Amino acid sequence: MDTQSLKEVFTHHFQNLRSSKRLELLARTPFDLTAEEHLTAERISSYAVNGCGLKLLYGTQRVDEATIDALEALAAETNAVKKMAFMQSGEILNSIYGHSSEMRAVLHTAARDFFADPQTSAAAVEAKNLAFAEVEKLRHFMTDINRENKYSDMVIIGIGGSELGPKAIYEALLPEKAPDRNVHFLGNIDPDAASIVLKDLNLKSTLVVVVSKTGTTLETRTNEEIFRNSFNNAGLDSNKHFIAVTSAKSPMDDKERYKEVFHMWDWIGGRYSSTGMPGAVPLAFAYGFESFIDFLEGANSIDKNALKSSARENLPLMTALLGIWNRNFLHMPVVAVIPYAQSLGRFPAHIQQLDMESNGKQIDKLGNHISFDTGPIIFGEPGTNAQHSFFQLIHQGTTTFPTEFIAFKSPQTAESHKINGTTSQEKLLANVFAQALALARGEKNENPNKNFPGNRPSSILLGAEITPYAIGALLALYEHKIAFQGFIWNINSFDQMGVELGKKLANRIIDIFKDPKLGADYAVENALIHQLDSF
Amino acid sequence: MDTQSLKEVFTHHFQNLRSSKRLELLARTPFDLTAEEHLTAERISSYAVNGCGLKLLYGTQRVDEATIDALEALAAETNAVKKMAFMQSGEILNSIYGHSSEMRAVLHTAARDFFADPQTSAAAVEAKNLAFAEVEKLRHFMTDINRENKYSDMVIIGIGGSELGPKAIYEALLPEKAPDRNVHFLGNIDPDAASIVLKDLNLKSTLVVVVSKTGTTLETRTNEEIFRNSFNNAGLDSNKHFIAVTSAKSPMDDKERYKEVFHMWDWIGGRYSSTGMPGAVPLAFAYGFESFIDFLEGANSIDKNALKSSARENLPLMTALLGIWNRNFLHMPVVAVIPYAQSLGRFPAHIQQLDMESNGKQIDKLGNHISFDTGPIIFGEPGTNAQHSFFQLIHQGTTTFPTEFIAFKSPQTAESHKINGTTSQEKLLANVFAQALALARGEKNENPNKNFPGNRPSSILLGAEITPYAIGALLALYEHKIAFQGFIWNINSFDQMGVELGKKLANRIIDIFKDPKLGADYAVENALIHQLDSF
Repeated sequence: MDTQSLKEVFTHHFQNLRSSKRLELLARTPFDLTAEEHLTAERISSYAVNGCGLKLLYGTQRVDEATIDALEALAAETNAVKKMAFMQSGEILNSIYGHSSEMRAVLHTAARDFFADPQTSAAAVEAKNLAFAEVEKLRHFMTDINRENKYSDMVIIGIGGSELGPKAIYEALLPEKAPDRNVHFLGNIDPDAASIVLKDLNLKSTLVVVVSKTGTTLETRTNEEIFRNSFNNAGLDSNKHFIAVTSAKSPMDDKERYKEVFHMWDWIGGRYSSTGMPGAVPLAFAYGFESFIDFLEGANSIDKNALKSSARENLPLMTALLGIWNRNFLHMPVVAVIPYAQSLGRFPAHIQQLDMESNGKQIDKLGNHISFDTGPIIFGEPGTNAQHSFFQLIHQGTTTFPTEFIAFKSPQTAESHKINGTTSQEKLLANVFAQALALARGEKNENPNKNFPGNRPSSILLGAEITPYAIGALLALYEHKIAFQGFIWNINSFDQMGVELGKKLANRIIDIFKDPKLGADYAVENALIHQLDSF
Repeated sequence: MDTQSLKEVFTHHFQNLRSSKRLELLARTPFDLTAEEHLTAERISSYAVNGCGLKLLYGTQRVDEATIDALEALAAETNAVKKMAFMQSGEILNSIYGHSSEMRAVLHTAARDFFADPQTSAAAVEAKNLAFAEVEKLRHFMTDINRENKYSDMVIIGIGGSELGPKAIYEALLPEKAPDRNVHFLGNIDPDAASIVLKDLNLKSTLVVVVSKTGTTLETRTNEEIFRNSFNNAGLDSNKHFIAVTSAKSPMDDKERYKEVFHMWDWIGGRYSSTGMPGAVPLAFAYGFESFIDFLEGANSIDKNALKSSARENLPLMTALLGIWNRNFLHMPVVAVIPYAQSLGRFPAHIQQLDMESNGKQIDKLGNHISFDTGPIIFGEPGTNAQHSFFQLIHQGTTTFPTEFIAFKSPQTAESHKINGTTSQEKLLANVFAQALALARGEKNENPNKNFPGNRPSSILLGAEITPYAIGALLALYEHKIAFQGFIWNINSFDQMGVELGKKLANRIIDIFKDPKLGADYAVENALIHQLDSF
């Protein structure tokens, strides 16, 4: 599609939409969850979206049919699903019109478009073929690694998108990991971080995967050098143990220096690359190539679901719309993501990155400064632990915000011993249901300290069990929730210019550490460095 | 002190204070950090509080001398330091006047009042003596354990305050841990959580520490039973491997069932118990008894510092006041806590619990519903990792909030290889300084996507190195920051009634899982359970 025709779909101003006005009106009297006759069994069952092995229950959100209709109208008025189709077909969506910008396609969906009913546009097919060639390369590589049977440990050196997502997914599947394969992640430039990973590692049986799209990330290249020194000091040839995941022609695209090089492309952003090679290499190593393919298939099933026109059938779209209702119309600044599964412990941190880096934006696609709220602050910890931590504030604090619960019917591997008549899994599920109800209903009490205001919204996303497929679906659901919100706000969710200024200033201060004379020109930077003198 | 005299110190209404009015006025034109002549080297050096081996730099907050004076006046008008003295001397501060409440002293400081210049009130001395007796018991116990030389692993079964703080501190010191001592933490009722801990454990050389103040915590007692079954199945006598940390006379206070029982008391809240036996047992096991004492001494040094009358010398009070400025006068709903140290990875999660459970309150000490904001939402991840994740939103998002950076001059154990002329630690420090400056200054750019608004406040807390002493000080600094904020808002930071409703509803749903017939009386709960049928 030519730039002008595409641009025409990205000209709306969120606050001026008919549907926005309608939603503002509805938000004056949002659905009251504390009224006993409101929160019924029938509502629990009917306020649900099913698909891809997941079920989104949103009866405990402050919405009624009129709200959902208005939110559907908002999606229609902003062409949300059409834009999702544009995205998956490879149109240039990573752009700001009228100003220099990255001008890239956004095709992380192509990295998993290997199943039924694939995209047919030339751009998507080309991307899919490139991605598939890497997957095939990985299959052969893993066959060799398994045949060699020499490697017990893999260290992933990467930061941000190259680390958080793959680590969250790796940990999610831990209960089913073979004991003779371990993966370690190293992101931080903190030298103690490298020391801790190196501490108990048998380098001889270790593969090191260096992940950097540009091949120039400060933390990653520094930690790579620390690790190469360790290998060399141990009399090992690091070139035979190191693998690169990088862009073609980056400084790391060098088969002399790496045992193998896997490719990334500029049409997959770092934070969207968990289904690309940054996720593929550790997952295939730890859980086997087939598990990785199952993971892709789960993600792909949501890619398809995200193209359904009605939010009542479209899991990520409904999740996005409920988020916008809470953020822009009920004015809630924060979202808690609470998986009731210990192995999803790092999943909220990945969603935090995915959402806040994508939608923490202040200009729209036309470069206008915007005056409504975009991406909220995302945080979360696993339940039930979180109940014993910050849930006090969710129930009785002065800032009200929604919670997105995630839960599964069955545990991954544990046997279900009954203790006092119920299994631990039943106790876990009882708690997630109880929290959603307690937040919604509240409870009146004459003692003000025991009074619960209620009307604190939540959703529950249910699945059968944590499997590679389910985690793929869960990941893609959040990826597309975030994309839909960006489409509706008319912002660019796919760049991250906000991190550049810090990088520039850090390089300047590194230069002063290197050559203190330079400090003379930068009095404030210099003053900060000299604060260290007193220690 | 009698209840009436004490109550008189807790009658103010935060919004009606003279100093609040003054601060509201000042907040109309907060200090502009983007003006080049404002953020000077002199400001960096002079906006600092020193003490206990720490240095708080707050030149990048939106305050000037007039603001600090007004904040000092706020502390004075609300008797903040006097209340801290009351707390440390054992007055009944965990109370709501005019309604039934816990009516307890708040004496976690007594658990570390073993150094110079101790408290002299009868209540504090009695508490200190009780606490010291447990510390002595632990010393003997550890001497025996070390002599026996049989135990390589310790599992802490506890949740919330019994888990998060001890785990955060244990991980903070990991680089100096002996390789033959490992501690594992199990909180979640999720059966997979227990399975993962049990997976690679040699039970014969494992001690299990069950931590529950009441001895009735659902998760903890369930996981204890799962573990006892595993020991029994392995032919081991669990009574000889299990240790209790609980209140005197709780169901767990039973030397027949436990190898040893350590005590907690109702004057230390769970989230404030890291310097009590819940922290003591794992820390002394992993790092030695002397390291645990160093940790206590660090905390105690801040307890003393918190009694200084001026915020300019009082680290937790200044931190608290800057937080109140941002929360109540600049209206920021969130605080990011970002340690530039990978080993502090779980520290923000502990502070999140400590702060949100303490100050997520909506009534004041007199039981009045309050109409100003109390505790903010706290979240954080280690830097530099976080820079590659959610920092985009901190720099360019639509919701502005403060960041509390934490950094140390030296790494814990790592050698400092220079790469490209600087060490990794210098690169790490360059990044934390750069972020504070970038957030404060911002940068104008014709391309709106590269424009940084600046005026995003932060503080940097600097220390020499992560040691047990430094971690003790850091922990106590946050404990008292939170207490000071509660004192100033005139809320009770020491109970957690907001978690009760969820517990009650969870028990009801557990009962329905046990006996589905009960579901007939609870249609909504029942409907939620039946959502699982489709999987």
